[in-house]
Amino acid sequence: MDFSSFLTSLGTSFVIFMVLMLLFAWLARKPGNSVIYYPNRILKGLDPYESGSRTRNPFAWIHEAMSSTEQDVISASGYDTAVYFVFLSTVLGILVLSGLVLLPVLLPVAATDNGVKIVSTTSNGTFSDLDKLSMGNVKEKSSRLWAFMLATYWVSFVTYFLLWKAYKHVSGLRADALMSPEVRAEQFSILVRDIPPVPEGQTRKEQVDSYFKRIYPESFYRSMVVTDNKVVNKLWEELQGYKKKLARAEAVYALSKKTGKPEGARPTNRIGFLGLIGKKVDSIEYYNEKINEVTPKLESEQKDTLREKQLDAALVFFSSRVAAASAAQSLHAQMRQVRQYVIYIVVALTILFFMIPIGLISALTTLENLKKYLPFLKPIVDLDAIKTVLEAYLPQLALIIFLALLPKLLYSLSKAEGIPSESHVVRAASGKYFYFIVLNVFVGVTVGGTLFSTFKSIQKKPDTLPDLLAAGLPLNATFFLTFVALRSFVGYGLELSRIVPLIIFHLRRKYLCKTEAEVKEAWRPGDLGYGTRGPNDMLIFTIVLCYSVIAPFIIPFGVVYFGLGWLILRNQALKVYVPTYESYGRMWPHMHTRILAALILYQVTMFGYFGVKKFYYAPFLLPTIILSLVFGFVCSKKFYRFFRDTALEVACRNLKETPNMEQVFRSYIPPSLSSEKIEDNQFEDAVSQVSRSTSFV
Amino acid sequence: MDFSSFLTSLGTSFVIFMVLMLLFAWLARKPGNSVIYYPNRILKGLDPYESGSRTRNPFAWIHEAMSSTEQDVISASGYDTAVYFVFLSTVLGILVLSGLVLLPVLLPVAATDNGVKIVSTTSNGTFSDLDKLSMGNVKEKSSRLWAFMLATYWVSFVTYFLLWKAYKHVSGLRADALMSPEVRAEQFSILVRDIPPVPEGQTRKEQVDSYFKRIYPESFYRSMVVTDNKVVNKLWEELQGYKKKLARAEAVYALSKKTGKPEGARPTNRIGFLGLIGKKVDSIEYYNEKINEVTPKLESEQKDTLREKQLDAALVFFSSRVAAASAAQSLHAQMRQVRQYVIYIVVALTILFFMIPIGLISALTTLENLKKYLPFLKPIVDLDAIKTVLEAYLPQLALIIFLALLPKLLYSLSKAEGIPSESHVVRAASGKYFYFIVLNVFVGVTVGGTLFSTFKSIQKKPDTLPDLLAAGLPLNATFFLTFVALRSFVGYGLELSRIVPLIIFHLRRKYLCKTEAEVKEAWRPGDLGYGTRGPNDMLIFTIVLCYSVIAPFIIPFGVVYFGLGWLILRNQALKVYVPTYESYGRMWPHMHTRILAALILYQVTMFGYFGVKKFYYAPFLLPTIILSLVFGFVCSKKFYRFFRDTALEVACRNLKETPNMEQVFRSYIPPSLSSEKIEDNQFEDAVSQVSRSTSFV
Repeated sequence: MDFSSFLTSLGTSFVIFMVLMLLFAWLARKPGNSVIYYPNRILKGLDPYESGSRTRNPFAWIHEAMSSTEQDVISASGYDTAVYFVFLSTVLGILVLSGLVLLPVLLPVAATDNGVKIVSTTSNGTFSDLDKLSMGNVKEKSSRLWAFMLATYWVSFVTYFLLWKAYKHVSGLRADALMSPEVRAEQFSILVRDIPPVPEGQTRKEQVDSYFKRIYPESFYRSMVVTDNKVVNKLWEELQGYKKKLARAEAVYALSKKTGKPEGARPTNRIGFLGLIGKKVDSIEYYNEKINEVTPKLESEQKDTLREKQLDAALVFFSSRVAAASAAQSLHAQMRQVRQYVIYIVVALTILFFMIPIGLISALTTLENLKKYLPFLKPIVDLDAIKTVLEAYLPQLALIIFLALLPKLLYSLSKAEGIPSESHVVRAASGKYFYFIVLNVFVGVTVGGTLFSTFKSIQKKPDTLPDLLAAGLPLNATFFLTFVALRSFVGYGLELSRIVPLIIFHLRRKYLCKTEAEVKEAWRPGDLGYGTRGPNDMLIFTIVLCYSVIAPFIIPFGVVYFGLGWLILRNQALKVYVPTYESYGRMWPHMHTRILAALILYQVTMFGYFGVKKFYYAPFLLPTIILSLVFGFVCSKKFYRFFRDTALEVACRNLKETPNMEQVFRSYIPPSLSSEKIEDNQFEDAVSQVSRSTSFV
Repeated sequence: MDFSSFLTSLGTSFVIFMVLMLLFAWLARKPGNSVIYYPNRILKGLDPYESGSRTRNPFAWIHEAMSSTEQDVISASGYDTAVYFVFLSTVLGILVLSGLVLLPVLLPVAATDNGVKIVSTTSNGTFSDLDKLSMGNVKEKSSRLWAFMLATYWVSFVTYFLLWKAYKHVSGLRADALMSPEVRAEQFSILVRDIPPVPEGQTRKEQVDSYFKRIYPESFYRSMVVTDNKVVNKLWEELQGYKKKLARAEAVYALSKKTGKPEGARPTNRIGFLGLIGKKVDSIEYYNEKINEVTPKLESEQKDTLREKQLDAALVFFSSRVAAASAAQSLHAQMRQVRQYVIYIVVALTILFFMIPIGLISALTTLENLKKYLPFLKPIVDLDAIKTVLEAYLPQLALIIFLALLPKLLYSLSKAEGIPSESHVVRAASGKYFYFIVLNVFVGVTVGGTLFSTFKSIQKKPDTLPDLLAAGLPLNATFFLTFVALRSFVGYGLELSRIVPLIIFHLRRKYLCKTEAEVKEAWRPGDLGYGTRGPNDMLIFTIVLCYSVIAPFIIPFGVVYFGLGWLILRNQALKVYVPTYESYGRMWPHMHTRILAALILYQVTMFGYFGVKKFYYAPFLLPTIILSLVFGFVCSKKFYRFFRDTALEVACRNLKETPNMEQVFRSYIPPSLSSEKIEDNQFEDAVSQVSRSTSFV
């Protein structure tokens, strides 16, 4: 890629962004679209245009986002979202503080050294105009390299400082949330998976009850043995489906009465494959029949599940928050179930070995290969205008599409590990995704590029990973520069304008939705999706960090990415997305670890690069790596346990009211088991026998 | 070293062992020596010769050791000793089961392949007669190598199987100990180091009391803020020293009355340096004076310590075992003190960088270097007989002496880390010692030997650690064979005969001891010393395991080492050593991890060695390494937490009697603070104000 196609790509991205932003300003003012641009406020029962964004200038949302406080974010979107903004501002802070020193110092130092004859490496994806401003322009063994080494130290210390501050801040946020005087059901219940073996002559439930009653005589409320709900869930969903379809058919019938003949047209459907073949039946009658057929099945299965399908786990309810926090941290059985860990390992190994072929495939989707293997595309691809655009975008586009498809797969694999909570599954999938993209995209592109290209400018044949990375980075600077710009402008432009959800919503409302519930489902906004957002941000951060000293002009691109991200997501968090769970910042330690991992990768790469530059003092960088490891260890000791366990200091704060334990308990009964028809005493098979009236403390 | 000097060394070792054993049989029968050979029994108030070992044949102790049960060991020497025997028998089992398959299979497979022309490598410390029986005798790329690969798998599976069984067994032992109905003070008290910060207007003690009273209203008894006792301990020891010296002077005076003049000769001493110079004074008067001088100082310092020198830690006492177990596992403060971890890291880094020069020095102490640098030794060293013995022993002897000096250093360094409990310090020092000796001795000798010697028999220049290890192992077989034999025969011979403690005891009793207390101190046996014994055993095990497939004839040597060790230590545990602390097998997970680490080192080495042999199927060994990691992970998940925390299932068993909390509490007051003269209420400064009469549950 030459300089002009780089500018083309940059310019196009920016224009797209401006267009999308104006589109947003125009579309968001139309009342019919308010469910797309303000669903969070609507679901909360607030006026979407409360702050006047409809009448004021089209950029009012920027002011609103800038002036919102952390408390606003927490009340609109919960603690997890607030923690996500801590992540964004920490990373932004690292890049800004680094840039403030690195740009004015390193660019002149590099540009005024003319010792290296620039080898034309256009074909490898770099170009000489920017090369002059990078570390590649400095002579080997030059004493100017000291400036670059000090810059590496500066970036490291800035990172330590901001990470420490952020961890402390998030820890405080979490403490605030956990010591809140509100009664939160999850603070009164724990999931116990290491129940001691059942003694003879007792049922699992009796054992759980007597065991916990003995240890927590004052605060034990009752227990609920976890059951295998696979079959009952399926039946329940079937029933819900029929109920929805019945409602829909009735709505259609009612509508036809108004618009057509007064007696109406009774809707019909076919009962064969996908409703396309088979006998035609009257829909209302058919679904009523089906509902009457499934309901007794569900009821008997509910009884069966509660009685026969108990698992080796139980939810235990406590009437005191401190007791629950303490019980959650205690080891109950001398030996623990390891089945889940075995599955965990098997899945992890599968993914690891799965990544290698996928990584290779993604590396081969370049324009040249496309022409070679799909020759019918050649005439189109060879048109000059299209070629420039394709050359600028294709590799990045392929990458982005591939990365968009991966998370779903990783999510379901993580679920297969048997992790019990939604937030934990997301964290596990997110971790896999992060390591996958850093390994395959960043390291893969860099090392792959180096291995496939000639070693013109490097005399020494590199043979270790840091050396390969170090040699490959300068050759791929433009690729990543374009990648970051694309993600900033097009990615966040689409995010802000919500063009895709808007179109889908209008199409669904017009052609598919018949009932109010269906319309509501069509605009339901979903959550911010930290699981994929976090790793993608981390990829950008890793790239910018690793290039920060080698090619400092990448830093402004990183600042734009995270600055825009902060601004636009602030808007989305306040007005659009609705959190699906709340883990009180439980994901922060993982984010922290990954930022630190990126820093260590950067330090190792720099060590390798100083080696490539034959700088004798390269080993002076080793202390930074050791320091990073020590920093990580100290942070984990100081803060981590509070994110795993609730400190009793925090849990022992007073509550506003006595918890309604009956309500807490009810909130844990899965909908598939809580039919109105089932008598309460049927639960006694899986839940404890403790009389509620006496154990209410 | 040639074959004859190997046999000399082996023969000498064995003769020494036989002599020491006979000496033991003879010496142990003399009643005057019973305090050396039966101190454990004597301290327990048992008849040392109960089982008739005095009258029966000199090998009766063997029968006694063999027929003793695990329960005998526990009652004589505690749970930690029993766990140590689990370690010995597990390792012995691994070697026996491996040897039963490897010896009959691999020796013929190796011996009948004559493809490799044996290169004379005498100067490198190996010899051709045994080489024929080793894997070195098998042709490159030979399909006979499959037998060796299967053998590697067999050894791995034997290890997994026995380790799993042992972990389960030790876990059961620990559970038995912890659920015992005896009241044990340490089960009712916990050390809390993460106390939340003190709110304004409260003292540390008030805060600790109100905090724990709030969380454990039923079972909190009282607390004791930990104080900095450095000064008070010093004063107390000074006082104890004067008291001992006074008692000694009085004993000397009383003796002189009996033996010399009836009015006696009052003992005198000089008060200058080491009692050698300075004014001569009357000892009894002088020490009485000193005692009167120090006592008030100590008393005022005691008050001062309790009031002014409180630290950020407290001992908290509970009247219920379950509450204590649960409190010990709970996180109390939101943020935790990290000073201790920082010190930990600093010390660990110091040791790491300290190891490298020490390792190099130990590698250079060979006979050749001795002659070179200490030329005056040359005439002696060149005598043929001495030369043979020296050549056989010198490197091993240097190693053993060096290793004997190291543990004390590591112990004091571990103490400097600020670890609060004795058993934990021993574990920490033991871990450092293990990694030190495996790194420096095993890897150092092997790799060092390879690097310094020529690469005659290996075409390919190895450049990674596994390759270096693989190339180096065959060259150093004899060195390690001699080392293991020396340790078995001379080491355990000395252990059994207790010649050194016997001589020291008799010398001290004759020339130094004047009072009964001094005599008792002279024969006090000490404990088994897992801290150094474990790592040394592990070194032997690592060596034997790594050679097991390459040179299977090393296995019998390993079996002899651990068999003898089991037998002789059983005798010592039953009759000699007295444990100084009891951690209920808390060290087992570390032993487990180290056995596994040795196994992984072995698998990596074998992988390298198959590479050296150009065996294309070498990658088929990689699954064993992954399997070992998975096995370790699963074990740690299943068992480890029970060794860190007490399972409530275990702690909730009934007690034989209501604990006497006053007594439990008193047992934690350090002797330097528990003078009879100090009124109980003075403790109130550092201990809680809870009235004892009411909180007694």
